[in-house]
Amino acid sequence: MKRIGVFTSGGDSPGMNACIRAVVRSAVYHGLEVYGIHRGYKGMIKGEIYRMDSHSVSNIIQKGGTILRSARSKEFMTPEGRQKAYEQLQQHGIEGLIAIGGDGTFTGANIFFEEYGIPTVGAPGTIDNDLYGTDYTIGYDTAVNTALDAIDKIRDTADSHDRVFFIEVMGRDSGYIAIPCAIGGGAEIVMIPETETSIEYVVDTLRTGWNRSKTSFIVIIAEGDEAGNASQVAAQVQHELPYMDARVTILGHVQRGGSPTAADRMLASQLGIACVDGLLAGRKCEMAGIISGELTYTPFIETITKDKLINPQYVKMVDILSV
Amino acid sequence: MKRIGVFTSGGDSPGMNACIRAVVRSAVYHGLEVYGIHRGYKGMIKGEIYRMDSHSVSNIIQKGGTILRSARSKEFMTPEGRQKAYEQLQQHGIEGLIAIGGDGTFTGANIFFEEYGIPTVGAPGTIDNDLYGTDYTIGYDTAVNTALDAIDKIRDTADSHDRVFFIEVMGRDSGYIAIPCAIGGGAEIVMIPETETSIEYVVDTLRTGWNRSKTSFIVIIAEGDEAGNASQVAAQVQHELPYMDARVTILGHVQRGGSPTAADRMLASQLGIACVDGLLAGRKCEMAGIISGELTYTPFIETITKDKLINPQYVKMVDILSV
Amino acid sequence: MKRIGVFTSGGDSPGMNACIRAVVRSAVYHGLEVYGIHRGYKGMIKGEIYRMDSHSVSNIIQKGGTILRSARSKEFMTPEGRQKAYEQLQQHGIEGLIAIGGDGTFTGANIFFEEYGIPTVGAPGTIDNDLYGTDYTIGYDTAVNTALDAIDKIRDTADSHDRVFFIEVMGRDSGYIAIPCAIGGGAEIVMIPETETSIEYVVDTLRTGWNRSKTSFIVIIAEGDEAGNASQVAAQVQHELPYMDARVTILGHVQRGGSPTAADRMLASQLGIACVDGLLAGRKCEMAGIISGELTYTPFIETITKDKLINPQYVKMVDILSV
Amino acid sequence: MKRIGVFTSGGDSPGMNACIRAVVRSAVYHGLEVYGIHRGYKGMIKGEIYRMDSHSVSNIIQKGGTILRSARSKEFMTPEGRQKAYEQLQQHGIEGLIAIGGDGTFTGANIFFEEYGIPTVGAPGTIDNDLYGTDYTIGYDTAVNTALDAIDKIRDTADSHDRVFFIEVMGRDSGYIAIPCAIGGGAEIVMIPETETSIEYVVDTLRTGWNRSKTSFIVIIAEGDEAGNASQVAAQVQHELPYMDARVTILGHVQRGGSPTAADRMLASQLGIACVDGLLAGRKCEMAGIISGELTYTPFIETITKDKLINPQYVKMVDILSV
Repeated sequence: MKRIGVFTSGGDSPGMNACIRAVVRSAVYHGLEVYGIHRGYKGMIKGEIYRMDSHSVSNIIQKGGTILRSARSKEFMTPEGRQKAYEQLQQHGIEGLIAIGGDGTFTGANIFFEEYGIPTVGAPGTIDNDLYGTDYTIGYDTAVNTALDAIDKIRDTADSHDRVFFIEVMGRDSGYIAIPCAIGGGAEIVMIPETETSIEYVVDTLRTGWNRSKTSFIVIIAEGDEAGNASQVAAQVQHELPYMDARVTILGHVQRGGSPTAADRMLASQLGIACVDGLLAGRKCEMAGIISGELTYTPFIETITKDKLINPQYVKMVDILSV
Repeated sequence: MKRIGVFTSGGDSPGMNACIRAVVRSAVYHGLEVYGIHRGYKGMIKGEIYRMDSHSVSNIIQKGGTILRSARSKEFMTPEGRQKAYEQLQQHGIEGLIAIGGDGTFTGANIFFEEYGIPTVGAPGTIDNDLYGTDYTIGYDTAVNTALDAIDKIRDTADSHDRVFFIEVMGRDSGYIAIPCAIGGGAEIVMIPETETSIEYVVDTLRTGWNRSKTSFIVIIAEGDEAGNASQVAAQVQHELPYMDARVTILGHVQRGGSPTAADRMLASQLGIACVDGLLAGRKCEMAGIISGELTYTPFIETITKDKLINPQYVKMVDILSV
Repeated sequence: MKRIGVFTSGGDSPGMNACIRAVVRSAVYHGLEVYGIHRGYKGMIKGEIYRMDSHSVSNIIQKGGTILRSARSKEFMTPEGRQKAYEQLQQHGIEGLIAIGGDGTFTGANIFFEEYGIPTVGAPGTIDNDLYGTDYTIGYDTAVNTALDAIDKIRDTADSHDRVFFIEVMGRDSGYIAIPCAIGGGAEIVMIPETETSIEYVVDTLRTGWNRSKTSFIVIIAEGDEAGNASQVAAQVQHELPYMDARVTILGHVQRGGSPTAADRMLASQLGIACVDGLLAGRKCEMAGIISGELTYTPFIETITKDKLINPQYVKMVDILSV
Repeated sequence: MKRIGVFTSGGDSPGMNACIRAVVRSAVYHGLEVYGIHRGYKGMIKGEIYRMDSHSVSNIIQKGGTILRSARSKEFMTPEGRQKAYEQLQQHGIEGLIAIGGDGTFTGANIFFEEYGIPTVGAPGTIDNDLYGTDYTIGYDTAVNTALDAIDKIRDTADSHDRVFFIEVMGRDSGYIAIPCAIGGGAEIVMIPETETSIEYVVDTLRTGWNRSKTSFIVIIAEGDEAGNASQVAAQVQHELPYMDARVTILGHVQRGGSPTAADRMLASQLGIACVDGLLAGRKCEMAGIISGELTYTPFIETITKDKLINPQYVKMVDILSV
């Protein structure tokens, strides 16, 4: 293998640039030629493919977002789209791919390999962390710290008045972001998709605290919680406890940005190097990850189909720590 | 005057602690005895009044919130409430007051002086900045930086996709927070209560940009804008421009917390000292402020009744800078 | 066991407060009485021992430093000192201890148990991370992020001029802080106590880069590197390469402070709970830690005598990534 | 005037990019063509001159450093150098210049105008703030907040042990950075070039505090203080007070970097617009600044020759507030 391509795909996450940098520099180190493919599969189809060298990735390790930009591509889901993508890669002489993204990205890479034999090795780039095959995904640590920083600020002011703050954090299918925000943010209640939390429970907990003359509360809600989003939960609680003053904060895309933390830069750098090593070693359709401190490669098919369960112990920790 | 009391009242703001510290240390420096009154007028009525010394305010200058806590008091608006408050102050031998808060706080202090002759000198503690008698209020600079930091993070991710971000910042009656967020955050549009911005204008501006192949936009909305809050504006825009992906972030009380910036600590320290100086010089019912670099004292009645207008030039700057 | 004591000892680290909070709340949760011992062994000897409850640890999870303060005690190293400490504990009816600190702390606890039979379970609280028995120590992640943040700021300005920045980070005996700072900070060279790096190598690397028209360089130096501290190394390099402009930054104790990161709060909370669980389960002279995601207890004697080696792979990563 | 050039020169400062952006966008808004000159006068001489448009300055407002890079040029101090620079400008058809920098930059621009009649309007870009003709320079607010953030972290840990921290901040000729660091950082002593502070005074103050059982102290030292730098002062104090543990932190170039604060972005944006307005209005050899909230233009010759004195009141504030 002499020439490889690298791209980012799906929702962007802090640390993607650090990973791109590691891929490029490691490729250069191994004597490979490396091309950056812009806007994921969309750009692959359109031929937005540019030569990169060591200097192309100078001074990006600390930057949020992705210099290669990201996109979702419906066209790549069609045989015609993949055909075009293949032709573009052929034209540029690209023999292997490194994809930084999530399960949607890897699903595409799997089909692409079956059809055209171009191998892809992947790195897990998503803030959500709910990806099988790695303890942490690139961007997760940063997203949690960003959310926590916001919660700290709310707590500064929370004491002053008799208030309940409902803070919505990201997590459509999982509580991976919500849990450390609740534990680290000193929240009284956490609501995540993996466990059922009734409005009655929330109301009871708040009322009990209130009657013990506790005057401010923080409730962390993962956006995908089955009880509703923060605004909906707040409205229902406010209705039951009209004497409490409910306030809502929706952090939204703030959590996707920001300079990556040290942990995310380390992880991104290690996995970027591992992707190049993997490709050189003949791996295909596998995702590099770190499990229990060990570098591992997991077949894409497993990262897509298997669930990464959250430690149920963590939910109990919220109870113990808000005693 | 030998003994004074200090309290914080209304919505809390970053820098209140720095101001309390300056009041206490400056009082000690001048040989005064100083008492902290907890939870504003509420605590004054209930007699939550404690002796403070130099050490009481150690290591608080960098902390958000207020160690004296804050509250709004309906009872103080009644003659009976003020009677009780007066008795409490009498009992503690407190001859003068220093109030850190906003116009509600100063309104109360004015009436209280008329009825009981206890002089109050005030410091402007509110993140909103819409208080006549000072160029900047304590907490404003911090709130703006906090909001801007969140906007920066959103911008990191904004480039990746075809999106419009609607970001709601504080400001029920004014655009003081929204304006520097828009200018400093590189926003395309700012919506503030002081000027009328129609949904048509927003839609047109976005559509024009889109047609020039601009793919991401940031709209900053002051919560009190006449066109609606961020969720409402976003829904209307999404309806008109269904091909753009509208996302909403509501920063909420995040903006009230956090460690005060250098400017807020300086301002709070200067005004805290000025409050004590003012009280010692026989001032009553006046607010210390800084206008054009000069320390000034403005009668409470003016801070309450006069408007501080925002520089209309700033709105034009947003247009020029997003050219 | 009905009554336990908790203390922090040695150099403080961010997250110690989060750990104290977890110890206290978990003790309350299990029906134990808990006492805070101020200033480590020093305060234990002097009887600075105070009852704590759930409320004592409100709103401290986000704070740097330690509310129990820390100290080093020469007196506790003497039999007389330990005798006094024992008497104080007896007087307060304290049957077990939780110590948050490093190997000096655990050495003392070990002797104390042998002499008086009072069991201690420990949590690793030090920014240095060079403690056997846990993958990460409490405070390490925060310290690295703090240093990295400073390095990022230096890099912003580094491009402008022809300069070499020598940045000294903490690490008397190990490169645990220096390594992620170098990798995450995009440094060209890292100098750590575990490996020998000659001044010649530094000079050669810089000269080679310079000749390739690279104009700015970052060198990360652990304070305990065998080649000298940052000022010494800079002076020698400047002498060899007089046309380059060498600048020195010594971060010093900045790295010990700051609000703990999410990872440090999680770790501190988990280990605080684990300490209480361990004491209740009859453990003595063991440190709670997390290795490969699993909660573990390691005898103090091992944490003191065994080395935790740094992954040599990391040094090579610096080379690859600065290609 | 149809075509202008913009450049940054001297030490870089946070907000320079925001100023470049405002210059470029404002120029586009007024129908001017704008060229970016890289590396200040050095690049002007070498013809490193590139066309810029609105898009060239996208997404830079939040970045530290300067995308145009900066340098000091000895050649421009010679008639031959300026001759070459003039020829380059002629070749590109550049009729007016906007310089973002300090007094060295403006001195050059003055001579250049006298010799070749090319007008320059300047914006004050330096973290030092000691520039006559504006209340604040671009980058100053950011530098102070960066230093303060470091001091806060040190204070977190300062309480634990009996220590004196000597923290050196930037300021070769002035205490503009040191003063708000000392007031906002709760320091006991500040040492600045404008006032004489003897080692005896430092030793006395520390000894007095120590005898009052105060156990930790912060001393802020401007790098250009007449008593020596932080390491020198610390060594002398340590010699006099051997029982205290002196620690040194040298923040160095950390203070030059980082994302600009809201205030710096506002100032940079306003002054960037004002530079273009000034050039269009026929101004030459003047610096745009803001004094007491009003936009002003000050002749370069005054900015170079007049002193901006620090308010002596501030030094007294440090005493009052550390009472």
